[in-house]
Amino acid sequence: MATKALELLIEEFHKLPGIGRKNAVRLAFHVLGLPKDDVARLAETLLKAKETIKKCAVCGDYSEQPLCDICADEGRDGGTICVVEDGRDILSFEKTGTYKGKYHVLNGKLAPLSGMTADKLNIKPLLERIAKEDVREIILGLNPDFDGDVTASYLIKLLKPFGIRITKIASGIPIGGNIEFADSATISRALDSRIDV
Amino acid sequence: MATKALELLIEEFHKLPGIGRKNAVRLAFHVLGLPKDDVARLAETLLKAKETIKKCAVCGDYSEQPLCDICADEGRDGGTICVVEDGRDILSFEKTGTYKGKYHVLNGKLAPLSGMTADKLNIKPLLERIAKEDVREIILGLNPDFDGDVTASYLIKLLKPFGIRITKIASGIPIGGNIEFADSATISRALDSRIDV
Repeated sequence: MATKALELLIEEFHKLPGIGRKNAVRLAFHVLGLPKDDVARLAETLLKAKETIKKCAVCGDYSEQPLCDICADEGRDGGTICVVEDGRDILSFEKTGTYKGKYHVLNGKLAPLSGMTADKLNIKPLLERIAKEDVREIILGLNPDFDGDVTASYLIKLLKPFGIRITKIASGIPIGGNIEFADSATISRALDSRIDV
Repeated sequence: MATKALELLIEEFHKLPGIGRKNAVRLAFHVLGLPKDDVARLAETLLKAKETIKKCAVCGDYSEQPLCDICADEGRDGGTICVVEDGRDILSFEKTGTYKGKYHVLNGKLAPLSGMTADKLNIKPLLERIAKEDVREIILGLNPDFDGDVTASYLIKLLKPFGIRITKIASGIPIGGNIEFADSATISRALDSRIDV
């Protein structure tokens, strides 16, 4: 039977995103089976991450320094800024190893019904960057879902007056993907965005 | 880009069972977005659970007291012991609310190829309980998979000499389940274990 300390631990895991009750139970029992040092290290890593990781003063991504590694890197092209919803997306873009510009983290996307309004997004600092730095192109690297598209449209309206190039990452059939299994929205988008060869 | 503290946090999550790299990234970013107090409480709950939860001296289940709630409960029938692999299984049995006997936690199941030999299981204390207490029936509440069946056979051999009743929980089509979608092994077992009506 679950003891009180165990029940509390299960609840804590259950609060994390994507962890259902059964998974929380599994994780809690796993932790109890770990050596004490491992649990101490896990707890310490949590506290240390929360304590040392702040936000980059320029792009808004998580960083242990006032400026994140990418914003501080003079080898990267500050003339191109890829706007993303979340710092996690930067990890994905960086993994490609092909993008040499900088980023800007919105910290979410517009979803007025769930209270995510434009003033809660990291948009004002983006406009200030464009006004201040020598920005030639803004790439909208938002997820191609409903909220992402709405956010992109909103940003395009705001950015148009600056007279710089505004682009959006392409949507279509994933590389190695299968047209047979792609949903209609993706196929429509792939058709609309067809390119001359 | 992932900072060092963030990378360490991702690694810690990744070490947990069933948490892939992508999920670990998601959890780490979630933690960074939490209020500081919430992270502190999570870390504290981890440490406290590991510190206060020991094993019950009788059944081997996790317990904050020397005896777990079930072993200490005189209202429960000590004459029936349900043998389970893991304390998690007790939670599932207890949820039914119909079992009034006691439990014994093996702490795993036989899997010699991965180093899980009989001497690593909590078997000797079970034999001592049977020799000492007035046990009438042992219910084998092991998972109906290969290792579980092997463990059950092993235990049956050990327990036979005591001359007490030994039973095994039934396997078959789950209630509300669909024969069409059940695997052949389950259907065979359901046929073999058919009961007269």
